[in-house]
Amino acid sequence: MIPTPYLLFLGDAPDPLAAKVAQGIRDWRPEHAVGQLRLPGCRADMRLPDMSLAEAWEAGARTLVIGVANRGGTFAESWRAAMIEAVEMGYDIASGLHTLLRDQPDLVAAARAERQRLHDVRIPSVRYPIASGERRTGKRCLAVGTDCSAGKMYTAMAMERVMRQRGMKATFRATGQTGILITGEGVPLDAVIADFMAGSIEWLTPDNDPDHWDLIEGQGSLSHPSYAGVSLALIHGGQPDALVLCHEPTRTHMRGLPHYPLPSLEEARDTALLHARRVNPDCRLVALSINTAALDEAAARACLAEAAERMDLPATDPYRFGAGPLVDALDGI
Amino acid sequence: MIPTPYLLFLGDAPDPLAAKVAQGIRDWRPEHAVGQLRLPGCRADMRLPDMSLAEAWEAGARTLVIGVANRGGTFAESWRAAMIEAVEMGYDIASGLHTLLRDQPDLVAAARAERQRLHDVRIPSVRYPIASGERRTGKRCLAVGTDCSAGKMYTAMAMERVMRQRGMKATFRATGQTGILITGEGVPLDAVIADFMAGSIEWLTPDNDPDHWDLIEGQGSLSHPSYAGVSLALIHGGQPDALVLCHEPTRTHMRGLPHYPLPSLEEARDTALLHARRVNPDCRLVALSINTAALDEAAARACLAEAAERMDLPATDPYRFGAGPLVDALDGI
Repeated sequence: MIPTPYLLFLGDAPDPLAAKVAQGIRDWRPEHAVGQLRLPGCRADMRLPDMSLAEAWEAGARTLVIGVANRGGTFAESWRAAMIEAVEMGYDIASGLHTLLRDQPDLVAAARAERQRLHDVRIPSVRYPIASGERRTGKRCLAVGTDCSAGKMYTAMAMERVMRQRGMKATFRATGQTGILITGEGVPLDAVIADFMAGSIEWLTPDNDPDHWDLIEGQGSLSHPSYAGVSLALIHGGQPDALVLCHEPTRTHMRGLPHYPLPSLEEARDTALLHARRVNPDCRLVALSINTAALDEAAARACLAEAAERMDLPATDPYRFGAGPLVDALDGI
Repeated sequence: MIPTPYLLFLGDAPDPLAAKVAQGIRDWRPEHAVGQLRLPGCRADMRLPDMSLAEAWEAGARTLVIGVANRGGTFAESWRAAMIEAVEMGYDIASGLHTLLRDQPDLVAAARAERQRLHDVRIPSVRYPIASGERRTGKRCLAVGTDCSAGKMYTAMAMERVMRQRGMKATFRATGQTGILITGEGVPLDAVIADFMAGSIEWLTPDNDPDHWDLIEGQGSLSHPSYAGVSLALIHGGQPDALVLCHEPTRTHMRGLPHYPLPSLEEARDTALLHARRVNPDCRLVALSINTAALDEAAARACLAEAAERMDLPATDPYRFGAGPLVDALDGI
């Protein structure tokens, strides 16, 4: 677990998109972000107070989170001095970069001397068990997708927020690097050793109160030839009571694979339920979460109405129109 | 790749079963085994010449293969002297033990000095790609199962042998530690990082002659909640043209999970084809491979006949009655 609250390091982000991780923390865990640290030339702004390392420490920050990604996910030389200063001052550092903090000898040396921890969330820090397949108490909802990058993380986060606003017990469970940096914990599933994938998700979503919901971040898609095995392990390990199917309606082929068409909503539903019911016979697909960002409002509303009627399920875009209908759909489970 | 031929190290195996890996090499790659090395008290015998390290070296052996497994898969102290002597003499060492050769400092030191290699086949030695899903030339047959340990490795090996006897181009492709030690190469799929599982199988079964068959060793089962993700990645990465469904008819529940029943043959067929056709629309289930070891001959023949009729497919036990019918079933693909 990564100590909170955070100081968000934006570095010399060339544009706001490069600071996607910082934006996610700002959007979903604003209470974790006391401020932002920007280097000269930075073109991202989280509208948080600009702070020095010392000012943020005073304000309670205990981890410097690398909220910016270079092309290639490498560690930029221009960041190094600030990182070393942070560790020497007592901060932990958290990163989702491909280049690992632990492979930076000067950072490691500084962290050892100061007993601070370097959190490389791209790789697992836990020895996960082999999945047992046993039922657990509490309820679980998993976001599945017709494709990768269809809005699964966002859907689970938006549901958690609405559920908490309604006074329900709910916990977002991160299964990817961005989600882990946002919430401070989770399983970097795509980096787990094959035999332990399903077990890592059982570990992530343990026994809980009967009225508690885990909102599990989905990964990949059962129809994506590069990553479907990861998606299947997530369904088996998660043992969901409810599935929300996420979809991006303008996509013409599977992400990264121009020769593979998307599955239909019906195919995606049937395949996900087939596997989910192996571990939880009562599992139901309860709603559709459709990412309408590429459509104007009239087209978005038409798209949602058409999908809802065709699949006989509630359908919404949780970012554009709110996640309420997705949470309503859990009623009675 | 592990240099051949091998000297098979049987150590102080307490019984023949403990030498399962050596037995596999003896059965399936006898041309790789020049002799056996036994310590006092050894109760396994491969009916190969007993040789000292020096004699086997003279006979051409270049790798000492640990053909024996302790309870727990650890490295036995009683083996150490022979291992170090072997490395000093010029041998590579190959092991599928959980305890890694590379974690034995004295062995590592000896191997460095002599430039020999320690092959820990339990962990991958290659950086595999992300799967592209692109079609490859050549033909592929994958053994899938209703459960783990249902005879998938044996089925693929037996098919390869019959195909070679018939003058067909065929290569067994190992995806587990035992298969890798037997054949000297392969992918230890259960130890691959999640994101690269399907890619590792594409790497293992590259473009080939149009009339060449890869016989791919299966892993786990799409119905096994602990390992199904691995099985799905294998189907997507392998892009099989043909599936052989392996089954153990007396099993009462999924291996290791008493609360999970086995899928029916029909369910196992439909689930495997659903996913295989995502990457290869022409894929067919061509035959059943049924492990009848627990049945007497009359019961075995009745079981095969019943399954063949029910599924309208050829059915055999390749160990008991030969793999010919499985190979015949590939005709016309």
